Amino acid sequence: MTNAELLQLLSDVRAGRVSDHDASAQILARIRQLPFEDLGFARVDTHRELRQGFPEVVLGLGKTPEQIAAIAERIVGHGQALLITRAEPAAFAAVQAVIPNAIYHPAARVITLPQGEVPRGNGTILIACAGTSDLPVAEEAALTASAMGNDVDRLYDVGVAGLHRLLNEQARLYSARAIIVVAGMEGALPSVVAGLVQVPVIAVPTSVGYGASFGGIAALLGMLNSCANGVAVVNIDNGFGAGAMASLINHL
Amino acid sequence: MTNAELLQLLSDVRAGRVSDHDASAQILARIRQLPFEDLGFARVDTHRELRQGFPEVVLGLGKTPEQIAAIAERIVGHGQALLITRAEPAAFAAVQAVIPNAIYHPAARVITLPQGEVPRGNGTILIACAGTSDLPVAEEAALTASAMGNDVDRLYDVGVAGLHRLLNEQARLYSARAIIVVAGMEGALPSVVAGLVQVPVIAVPTSVGYGASFGGIAALLGMLNSCANGVAVVNIDNGFGAGAMASLINHL
Amino acid sequence: MTNAELLQLLSDVRAGRVSDHDASAQILARIRQLPFEDLGFARVDTHRELRQGFPEVVLGLGKTPEQIAAIAERIVGHGQALLITRAEPAAFAAVQAVIPNAIYHPAARVITLPQGEVPRGNGTILIACAGTSDLPVAEEAALTASAMGNDVDRLYDVGVAGLHRLLNEQARLYSARAIIVVAGMEGALPSVVAGLVQVPVIAVPTSVGYGASFGGIAALLGMLNSCANGVAVVNIDNGFGAGAMASLINHL
Amino acid sequence: MTNAELLQLLSDVRAGRVSDHDASAQILARIRQLPFEDLGFARVDTHRELRQGFPEVVLGLGKTPEQIAAIAERIVGHGQALLITRAEPAAFAAVQAVIPNAIYHPAARVITLPQGEVPRGNGTILIACAGTSDLPVAEEAALTASAMGNDVDRLYDVGVAGLHRLLNEQARLYSARAIIVVAGMEGALPSVVAGLVQVPVIAVPTSVGYGASFGGIAALLGMLNSCANGVAVVNIDNGFGAGAMASLINHL
Amino acid sequence: MTNAELLQLLSDVRAGRVSDHDASAQILARIRQLPFEDLGFARVDTHRELRQGFPEVVLGLGKTPEQIAAIAERIVGHGQALLITRAEPAAFAAVQAVIPNAIYHPAARVITLPQGEVPRGNGTILIACAGTSDLPVAEEAALTASAMGNDVDRLYDVGVAGLHRLLNEQARLYSARAIIVVAGMEGALPSVVAGLVQVPVIAVPTSVGYGASFGGIAALLGMLNSCANGVAVVNIDNGFGAGAMASLINHL
Amino acid sequence: MTNAELLQLLSDVRAGRVSDHDASAQILARIRQLPFEDLGFARVDTHRELRQGFPEVVLGLGKTPEQIAAIAERIVGHGQALLITRAEPAAFAAVQAVIPNAIYHPAARVITLPQGEVPRGNGTILIACAGTSDLPVAEEAALTASAMGNDVDRLYDVGVAGLHRLLNEQARLYSARAIIVVAGMEGALPSVVAGLVQVPVIAVPTSVGYGASFGGIAALLGMLNSCANGVAVVNIDNGFGAGAMASLINHL
Amino acid sequence: MTNAELLQLLSDVRAGRVSDHDASAQILARIRQLPFEDLGFARVDTHRELRQGFPEVVLGLGKTPEQIAAIAERIVGHGQALLITRAEPAAFAAVQAVIPNAIYHPAARVITLPQGEVPRGNGTILIACAGTSDLPVAEEAALTASAMGNDVDRLYDVGVAGLHRLLNEQARLYSARAIIVVAGMEGALPSVVAGLVQVPVIAVPTSVGYGASFGGIAALLGMLNSCANGVAVVNIDNGFGAGAMASLINHL
Amino acid sequence: MTNAELLQLLSDVRAGRVSDHDASAQILARIRQLPFEDLGFARVDTHRELRQGFPEVVLGLGKTPEQIAAIAERIVGHGQALLITRAEPAAFAAVQAVIPNAIYHPAARVITLPQGEVPRGNGTILIACAGTSDLPVAEEAALTASAMGNDVDRLYDVGVAGLHRLLNEQARLYSARAIIVVAGMEGALPSVVAGLVQVPVIAVPTSVGYGASFGGIAALLGMLNSCANGVAVVNIDNGFGAGAMASLINHL
Repeated sequence: MTNAELLQLLSDVRAGRVSDHDASAQILARIRQLPFEDLGFARVDTHRELRQGFPEVVLGLGKTPEQIAAIAERIVGHGQALLITRAEPAAFAAVQAVIPNAIYHPAARVITLPQGEVPRGNGTILIACAGTSDLPVAEEAALTASAMGNDVDRLYDVGVAGLHRLLNEQARLYSARAIIVVAGMEGALPSVVAGLVQVPVIAVPTSVGYGASFGGIAALLGMLNSCANGVAVVNIDNGFGAGAMASLINHL
Repeated sequence: MTNAELLQLLSDVRAGRVSDHDASAQILARIRQLPFEDLGFARVDTHRELRQGFPEVVLGLGKTPEQIAAIAERIVGHGQALLITRAEPAAFAAVQAVIPNAIYHPAARVITLPQGEVPRGNGTILIACAGTSDLPVAEEAALTASAMGNDVDRLYDVGVAGLHRLLNEQARLYSARAIIVVAGMEGALPSVVAGLVQVPVIAVPTSVGYGASFGGIAALLGMLNSCANGVAVVNIDNGFGAGAMASLINHL
Repeated sequence: MTNAELLQLLSDVRAGRVSDHDASAQILARIRQLPFEDLGFARVDTHRELRQGFPEVVLGLGKTPEQIAAIAERIVGHGQALLITRAEPAAFAAVQAVIPNAIYHPAARVITLPQGEVPRGNGTILIACAGTSDLPVAEEAALTASAMGNDVDRLYDVGVAGLHRLLNEQARLYSARAIIVVAGMEGALPSVVAGLVQVPVIAVPTSVGYGASFGGIAALLGMLNSCANGVAVVNIDNGFGAGAMASLINHL
Repeated sequence: MTNAELLQLLSDVRAGRVSDHDASAQILARIRQLPFEDLGFARVDTHRELRQGFPEVVLGLGKTPEQIAAIAERIVGHGQALLITRAEPAAFAAVQAVIPNAIYHPAARVITLPQGEVPRGNGTILIACAGTSDLPVAEEAALTASAMGNDVDRLYDVGVAGLHRLLNEQARLYSARAIIVVAGMEGALPSVVAGLVQVPVIAVPTSVGYGASFGGIAALLGMLNSCANGVAVVNIDNGFGAGAMASLINHL
Repeated sequence: MTNAELLQLLSDVRAGRVSDHDASAQILARIRQLPFEDLGFARVDTHRELRQGFPEVVLGLGKTPEQIAAIAERIVGHGQALLITRAEPAAFAAVQAVIPNAIYHPAARVITLPQGEVPRGNGTILIACAGTSDLPVAEEAALTASAMGNDVDRLYDVGVAGLHRLLNEQARLYSARAIIVVAGMEGALPSVVAGLVQVPVIAVPTSVGYGASFGGIAALLGMLNSCANGVAVVNIDNGFGAGAMASLINHL
Repeated sequence: MTNAELLQLLSDVRAGRVSDHDASAQILARIRQLPFEDLGFARVDTHRELRQGFPEVVLGLGKTPEQIAAIAERIVGHGQALLITRAEPAAFAAVQAVIPNAIYHPAARVITLPQGEVPRGNGTILIACAGTSDLPVAEEAALTASAMGNDVDRLYDVGVAGLHRLLNEQARLYSARAIIVVAGMEGALPSVVAGLVQVPVIAVPTSVGYGASFGGIAALLGMLNSCANGVAVVNIDNGFGAGAMASLINHL
Repeated sequence: MTNAELLQLLSDVRAGRVSDHDASAQILARIRQLPFEDLGFARVDTHRELRQGFPEVVLGLGKTPEQIAAIAERIVGHGQALLITRAEPAAFAAVQAVIPNAIYHPAARVITLPQGEVPRGNGTILIACAGTSDLPVAEEAALTASAMGNDVDRLYDVGVAGLHRLLNEQARLYSARAIIVVAGMEGALPSVVAGLVQVPVIAVPTSVGYGASFGGIAALLGMLNSCANGVAVVNIDNGFGAGAMASLINHL
Repeated sequence: MTNAELLQLLSDVRAGRVSDHDASAQILARIRQLPFEDLGFARVDTHRELRQGFPEVVLGLGKTPEQIAAIAERIVGHGQALLITRAEPAAFAAVQAVIPNAIYHPAARVITLPQGEVPRGNGTILIACAGTSDLPVAEEAALTASAMGNDVDRLYDVGVAGLHRLLNEQARLYSARAIIVVAGMEGALPSVVAGLVQVPVIAVPTSVGYGASFGGIAALLGMLNSCANGVAVVNIDNGFGAGAMASLINHL
């Protein structure tokens, strides 16, 4: 409730257009107002778009297909763009039943439905990944960034064991406004990339590897300990988080 | 064996109503008496209700359906209320075969059968959870608290990333006598809740999350390190433990 | 700002006793009002007593003696009771310079100054510890509970390797309204105590031990995995947290 | 090769009963002799019985049914007793095909075939476990100890949350020559038992539990940090190891 | 070596202004040229400013005072701005001996010397911290961001246990172009902040805490598992890294 | 209280030699009797010798010199043998002030005073250690076993990297009734020893090593995972625990 | 691009045989040239053979069968030897469809196709493993070393619990030029082997074991902490890595 | 004892030149002979040189200065080269008192004394390190390799954040026969180096770093998970181990 609104209301009170009780109720109501819809098992944050520039994104993990579909229905019902991550095929089936034109990206386990006006980012977000096995996470990042209004450039399988594959593409590195680097195993790629460029690097460790990779811990630690400047890290396999962070940066 | 009972017995000895040998045997027997029933693979603690206010609760995890059903039969046979947690459908099938009116709550994997007189708690136990995925654990807590004689209020999907969803419900927070807060991922909700209220908060980390959530360790550590006063923690996913703790508090 | 206050203000507006701009400013000011004092490096929460029943408690750890003394001065200046934990002798020297009657408890590294009216708890809080080495943490809990208005009963060195030491004191266990159990090494004492009583048990793991005790992790895990009902856990060595939690329970 | 044998051989050399080359070969052969049978994928240690008092025991884990059966066949072929642990039903099927009278104990996943003369232990080995879920590991220990020639006494479901169940059986504790204590969750039972008796206690942590039990780590750490004397620990779920250790002690 | 330069060189070759051998040597030299100065124990990257917008920053940790001073001397000798982090007083003494006007910030353990032209960032970087103990890390971030040409706003001691302290300052949150959030213990502040704003949040876990904070692991995990969008994390206590990342973002 | 005592008492009651109230009090008193001495900060278990064959042993770690001296005084005052482990020189000074003939073993940080009649073990306990750095722990084990009435044989610096040093001493291995093996780093020695002998092996991991030895975790895990039969493990650096365990075995 | 090539090109420029623009383009092209083939999801490093002596090896883990087959096709298309590790049967089916004479080694999950001229190593690589369960990893190492042109000697099931099985084969140990030692559980075998020989030992921890083996961590730590000289370690279950390392050594 | 020696002995027996008893004693003596010197606290392996090509190296860590000096004296007394690692100044003082010409290298904490004939390696060992802080470990490796008869080339401060520093020195990489790469923090350098060369790379993680570097764990995991072929790893900070391994390789 802004100062202007308050002044208008108070002037209405003085003019007798609004009673004291009504005005009091109105002010308290605005404070108490529900910027979400309560489904019992979930509170859909329908004002997220206003507050953060993109509607609420649904994390499919740990929700039943029925819950996912019900939440999706509300979001789409508000005319907002739909983005669901970690969606298994069964979840997509349930969503498709209520939103027939929803699109499934199986490699990334992502469901999308473009809707409404999403503001465009200012530059390109480059998404680099170290190996073919990192592709699902890289795609989750790419689809997220794309859904949030950004141009996306994909640079895949450029791990540090064959440096020439990366050095060969320096031009693409230099033309990005933000770079997402996805890597498993020892997670060294973000350090090398950040040493070459002058834009923020979002590092995404993946659970790719075996043995002492410990489901991505090795890559995570490698990235947190990067000796290069301009690297920040998101959770293991969190392609979505990297895409959202890069999008915020690209919209500045 | 109380002093009064002993005095009575000794007076009986003096009066010749009881022989020395009988009295001695009687005293030793009371010390040795078995307040449990031995099934070979399990010792059902039939005196738990007397000692702790609620009959023995059965943890289904790691027991075969046959073992669970056999234990349940004894408890119900003593006229006591039945509460089984971590019960898979196969366990319920075995229980139902011997206790036809047992009730299964599939989301929480809990079996209940209200029986006997359970003393009522003094106030309401509020159960808050951060996200939809925490619901199974929250329900285990709610069903436990409810079975143990408490009024329960459920407040779900009020995680800290959309604070207004929680702040909007402060009245419900203030009207509870004990609060259970269930959260996965970073487990920040208990700190925020405990900063707002003046009653004990039982925090339950859940295994919800991925990557560096490490099956609930992130949430557990977050809760143990809470900067707010009045927070104590139970095991990851231990909705039952939180419900039992809150019930003890609410019965004081 | 309550409904009654708002109605009064609006009636003042209508009557011309308050201008629109003043009323608007007044409402916004109340929303923006500062329930804390800003020292630059710290914001002393002077309304904590109102909100949570006890003034802000100062954690000495990580603060310089000067910072601790400055914060303490503000709290005492508001006529509120002082409680500082993890206070090294140097911190006490700095505090004493500005608050000469402050009291230092060296074993527990706690500074206290009783002031104002602290509401009394309803029963006794029993503080049990497993070994002599757990004493500093137990004392932090005891001093905290005591400062917060509770009667405290100390039962020390009753570890499970000599069960008769504990069983001998069952009467004291039964007469408590809440029990704090402090233990290092394997941390088994809370399970045994909780199996005997019908009141909530707050378990405090200590960093006492060596080798695979890992600075209290062994005890912490033991307590989180307690097979007994009615146990909740606070951080390793967090005597303060246990005392505060038990006090909240005892004030219900 | 003993001194006596060598002297005899040398006297044979001098007497011409044995040529130099033969004697040299004979000495080197004895040094190189094979006290095992080489199956390519395994070297069956057929002299283990002589060296350690019981034939080689087969750990089924990680071996194919075919490999297990082939090894079992060699052991039985030498007239030695058979003991296979961690044997899945498919492994038993393969063993039974070549050793029809082998016996399968499904709860413990153990295969046995008594054969030959196993020396008897001197006293009784008591096997206590904390809960019903610990039974498979306890049975592995019991079957191992039994196969190795020991009298075994089983005392199950006597966890510390209901102390009277254990205290009621002190006589059985006192009559054992070695005690194996099997427990999951917080693993507190060995400390309590060792505080009551005067014989060695072998503690076996089990992977029973959930959340912060971390597959038995909590119990393992609890046991390693036992505040009681006379406790030593074997690997998580290693019922076999405990049985073998207790048997060695009981044969002293 | 750009295409234009190459064409010019080749035209010089054709015109006889440059011999073949000279041209060949010149091309190879440019490829081999040393954009660093070799001190034996260190290679000072004097072209870092060109490549990444700010001269090489010296991490004092693990270097001797002599090594630090020698490196600092080279940087300052090139007329570049000096920034040394993790500098103990002994290191500053050594630096001051060769660079008398260097400035020491003891709380943050940072040495600075503004020199040359540092490009200004576009907006303000807000640095929020949860508690007074997080101040050294927050100051390292603030000094880094400031040295790199950014306006900095400090918002300290706004932890989640007293939410009103943060909510009261939302205007400052909204006016920042990038936000650094520094927190120890449960590390919940970044989630709450990121839920309120629309700009990137760089989260810095600190080693503040005790017991199960494990030197900052609890805070680190909490931040990596943030349920809010737009959060990326740097290493524990890495105020410098956060400042450098925020500066890159603010210069876009 | 035995049956015989009870019968006598009851006969006294009948004969009027003891009143009902006196008898009742006497019975209850015996149940409540204190088999320990309460020093406030410690409960000295003066009946431990009766119950477990050796008086209470004092763990010096975490106790003040004054507390250690006070406890020691009580034990010696009962005419019992004294054994204090983890005793720093300051603790010995305090003990010596009240018990002048106490003996200090600095390498093992152990204080002893032989007193009373300690029953002799049946055979020899061999104590092997892998390297010179393991000596303090090995000596703690040796002094413990010796104080508890056992013959001790020391075999030091026989690590597996030079197998001939161990194989050369097989005769001593074979003549022991129980073997304690102390090793740090990879902790492989117990497996090799247990593969050669037919008696129980108590393995003691030490914190000797660096880097990925993690303060003894590597050795601990190696020993828990021993592929040899007849190995049980005690806590890292727990020479005392191994000595006590071996003594129990040697007294069977 | 070598000096000689450059001089030739420049002489062509001067002679007018090559235009300036062509020469410039040619130089830049060589710098930018692609020593890999871009499949979109993968960049096949077709020059790896030149650079490292063996064509790119495909890690099957985390790749779809279609991706594996496509990469394999390119490698074979270049006439290079094929080696795919961690190949499940489905992957082999896809490979076989395009490369009918590819060979599958199911125990090791390896696909091979010998092609082209692979340079021979100088000596024999011995591959020792501790138990039958380590066989799959040992075979991966053996097949890798063999494919890379080395003579391989297999010595299986020679774990330290039965030392005579290893000591009996010392001749084979002494005749190797490099030794790979594969072991799970406590991972002690490399220390014992390295103590006997004078050639480099590559240690491979396996995930064989249970409980506190933690999926190979125990073995990994044991090997990293080896008290013997001349041991270096590769990742858990990384038979391929050991084979490749040993091959490099054997080709020196 | 070889076959030839045995045949000679037997021929002596037959000829009467040696009596039966003498021959028997001689054979047994050779088997029992002590290839070490027993100092009580240590067994100096004086035959190590014969067996492994270099005399026993002394690890100073965990030994008292007196023990170190005594061991050193024996080694030098046998005319063998002396190498002591992890030697603090106090240890050197003790060594110097008995071996005046011993040399101390303080940065690496190494004591050396060249003596006798050490066989020369075949090529050069290159030692690369990522940062100035890794220098002490790199020097330990260099001094070890040098003492063992190898030519050493040092390439320091070539971390991956400034790739040009490394790429500039490719010629030195290519001319080495074995490469030791020392790095802390994210430990990415070995992967990059191994991707460029065709010789074995020994990776040494260092404890350099802070926060989530966890004393070198991050670097260790990064190196174990290297995506490049031909990398094997030694313990954290184990410069000696890397030097010894590289020397074995270089002597092949």
